[in-house]
Amino acid sequence: MLKGSAKAHTNIALIKYWGKADEDLIIPMNNSLSLTLDAFYTETTVTFSEELTTDIFYLDDVLQDEAGTTKISRFLDLVRKKADCPLFAEVKSYNHVPTAAGLASSASGLAALAAACNQALQLNLSDKDLSRLARRGSGSACRSIFPGFVEWQKGTSDETSFAEPVPSSGWEDELAMIFILINDQEKDVSSRDGMRRTVETSAFYPGWLQTTPQDLASAKIAIHAQDFNKLGAITENNALKMHGTTLAAVPPFTYWSPDSLKAMNAVKKIRATGLACYFTMDAGPNVKVLCQKKDVAKIEAELANYFEKEQLITAFSGPGITYL
Amino acid sequence: MLKGSAKAHTNIALIKYWGKADEDLIIPMNNSLSLTLDAFYTETTVTFSEELTTDIFYLDDVLQDEAGTTKISRFLDLVRKKADCPLFAEVKSYNHVPTAAGLASSASGLAALAAACNQALQLNLSDKDLSRLARRGSGSACRSIFPGFVEWQKGTSDETSFAEPVPSSGWEDELAMIFILINDQEKDVSSRDGMRRTVETSAFYPGWLQTTPQDLASAKIAIHAQDFNKLGAITENNALKMHGTTLAAVPPFTYWSPDSLKAMNAVKKIRATGLACYFTMDAGPNVKVLCQKKDVAKIEAELANYFEKEQLITAFSGPGITYL
Repeated sequence: MLKGSAKAHTNIALIKYWGKADEDLIIPMNNSLSLTLDAFYTETTVTFSEELTTDIFYLDDVLQDEAGTTKISRFLDLVRKKADCPLFAEVKSYNHVPTAAGLASSASGLAALAAACNQALQLNLSDKDLSRLARRGSGSACRSIFPGFVEWQKGTSDETSFAEPVPSSGWEDELAMIFILINDQEKDVSSRDGMRRTVETSAFYPGWLQTTPQDLASAKIAIHAQDFNKLGAITENNALKMHGTTLAAVPPFTYWSPDSLKAMNAVKKIRATGLACYFTMDAGPNVKVLCQKKDVAKIEAELANYFEKEQLITAFSGPGITYL
Repeated sequence: MLKGSAKAHTNIALIKYWGKADEDLIIPMNNSLSLTLDAFYTETTVTFSEELTTDIFYLDDVLQDEAGTTKISRFLDLVRKKADCPLFAEVKSYNHVPTAAGLASSASGLAALAAACNQALQLNLSDKDLSRLARRGSGSACRSIFPGFVEWQKGTSDETSFAEPVPSSGWEDELAMIFILINDQEKDVSSRDGMRRTVETSAFYPGWLQTTPQDLASAKIAIHAQDFNKLGAITENNALKMHGTTLAAVPPFTYWSPDSLKAMNAVKKIRATGLACYFTMDAGPNVKVLCQKKDVAKIEAELANYFEKEQLITAFSGPGITYL
C-alpha cells in the first residue's frame, strides 16, 4: 500500500493567467504572478492499492460519481505513467474553503494531489518538477507549490513551463487579501471555457498578450521596491484588462455581477479616503482586495458599510506545499 | 434680424462612434450607425442681431453662464465664418429630455442649432452639408439630421465626413427602444475624455478598429434583410466591445454602474423567455433596450419586475430635422 498526504494553499493571481497555448499540456499564453494565501487550502491523502479496481475520490467525505472523478483519474494516469505504477488509487480531499463561496479550489486541490502522489510513490520530485506535475492537473496549481509571490514561467513545453518563487525579502508577510464573497445566481462560464473562447474569438486578446509582459515586469519591480501602491495599481489594472477581453469575445460574456461592480466601486471609494487598497477578480463574481496587513481592520470596517460581515474573509500570505 | 427655428431628435448608435481621428474637425476613427428616436428632442431658435454685443444662450429658459455658452459660441463662430456674418446671436433651446435622466442632449442640441442657423442665415445647406456642419458642433449630431437608420461615413476630411440615411424600406417603424434610466452618483468620465483616453492608451483600441467595420457591414445586411435578432445581437456585441476598450485604458475606467449590469442581465433573462430584445449602452450608466414595437408592452412589463416604472421610457423611430 502506497500512501501520501499533503496540504496545499490557494493562490490569487495579481497578473492573471488567461489563455492556453497548449490545452493538453496546459502551457499558458502569458506568464502570471500570484500570491499564495493562508486562508484557503486543501488536504489530500492518496492511497495506491492492489485491492482497488477503479479510482475512488472522496471530497469532504462525500464519494464523487464518475463525472466528479474524471479529472482526478486523468491526473492519476499521468502520475502512474511517470512512476510506472499500474495501481488504482483512493483520493480523500478536504477543501478548507467556505461553503458556497464560489472560490475555485482547483489550484490548491491539484497541488495537494500532486504532492500527495509525489510522497505516495516516492517520486522525489524537485519543487520545479512538482510544479510541472501540478500544472498538468490545473494550470494555476503549479503556483501553489510555493509560498509568497510566485511567477509561472509560461515556457514552451512540458519541461519549461513551471512556477518559481519571486524574491521578495518576506514583504508578502506585510500584505493581506480581503475576499468579498458575492452571491450570484447567473450561470457561470468556467475559467477553462472562458479563456478558450477569449483566445479563439476576442479581438482584444492580442492587446492582452502584448501588454501583460510589461504589467508583470512592473509588478516585479514594485515587489522588489516594496512599493505597495504601484503593485496594487498594476494588479487592479491587469484584472480589469483581463475582464475587458471577455467583452469582445464572440459571443461576449462577463464574470461581473452587479455586486461585483458595487465592490469595485467601494474599493475605489475607500482608496480615495487614503486607505491603500486595490481589487482583483478572477473567473467569477467575487472581488478580492489587496491591502497591507496594517490596514486590514480599517478596510474591513469600511467594507462592512457595503457588505455583510459574513461576506468578508481576510487571508494573509500562506505557505507552499506541506507534507502531512 | 436674422432668425431661424428648428427641431432635432436624438439618436442612439447601434454601431458606436468611439474615438476621434481629428479632435478639431471631429472626424471619427470608425463609421457608426444609429437609429433616430422620437421621444427625445431639442427645439432651438437662433437670432442673429446687430443689437447683441455677445452670444447669449438660454437652455430651458435659463440664461447660461460663460462656461455654459462656450461650446455654442464656438459653433456660432464656424457659422459666422461660413456665412460671412459678423453678428452675435441669441440662442434659445428647449431640451425635451426627462430631467436628470443623464441622457446626452448634445446630438439633438447641436443638430437643432445647426439647422436653426441654416434657416436664420439662409445658408441653403444640403442635408449632407448640414450634417457636416452639425458634426463640427458635436460628432453624433451629424446623424440627427436624418430619420431612421443613419450611417456616419467617417471620411478623411471636413468635406468627406458626414452622415446619410441607410435604406431600410421603413423597417425602423416596426422597432422601438426602451430606455432604462439608471441613477448613478459616480463621477462621470465625459464621452469626449473617455474616447480620447481610450484611443491614446487602450491596448484594445486596435481590436475595436479592426472589427467594427465588420460589425457595421453585418448590421446593414441585417437591416436590409429586416432580421431583428441579427441586428440586435450585433448591436449588443458592439456595445459590449466599446465598453471593453475602456478597461484597458490607462488608467482604466468604466461607464457601468451596478444597476447597469442588473439591467443587462434582465435583458438577457427576458430574451431567454423568447422575447427578442437586446441592450446597448453609451458613455453613461443608462441601458437602452432595442426591441420590436409589437413586443414593447410585454417587455416593459417584464422590465417592471426589475426597475421602477418611472425609470422606463419608450421611444420609437423619429424624424430628422424639422424647421419650425
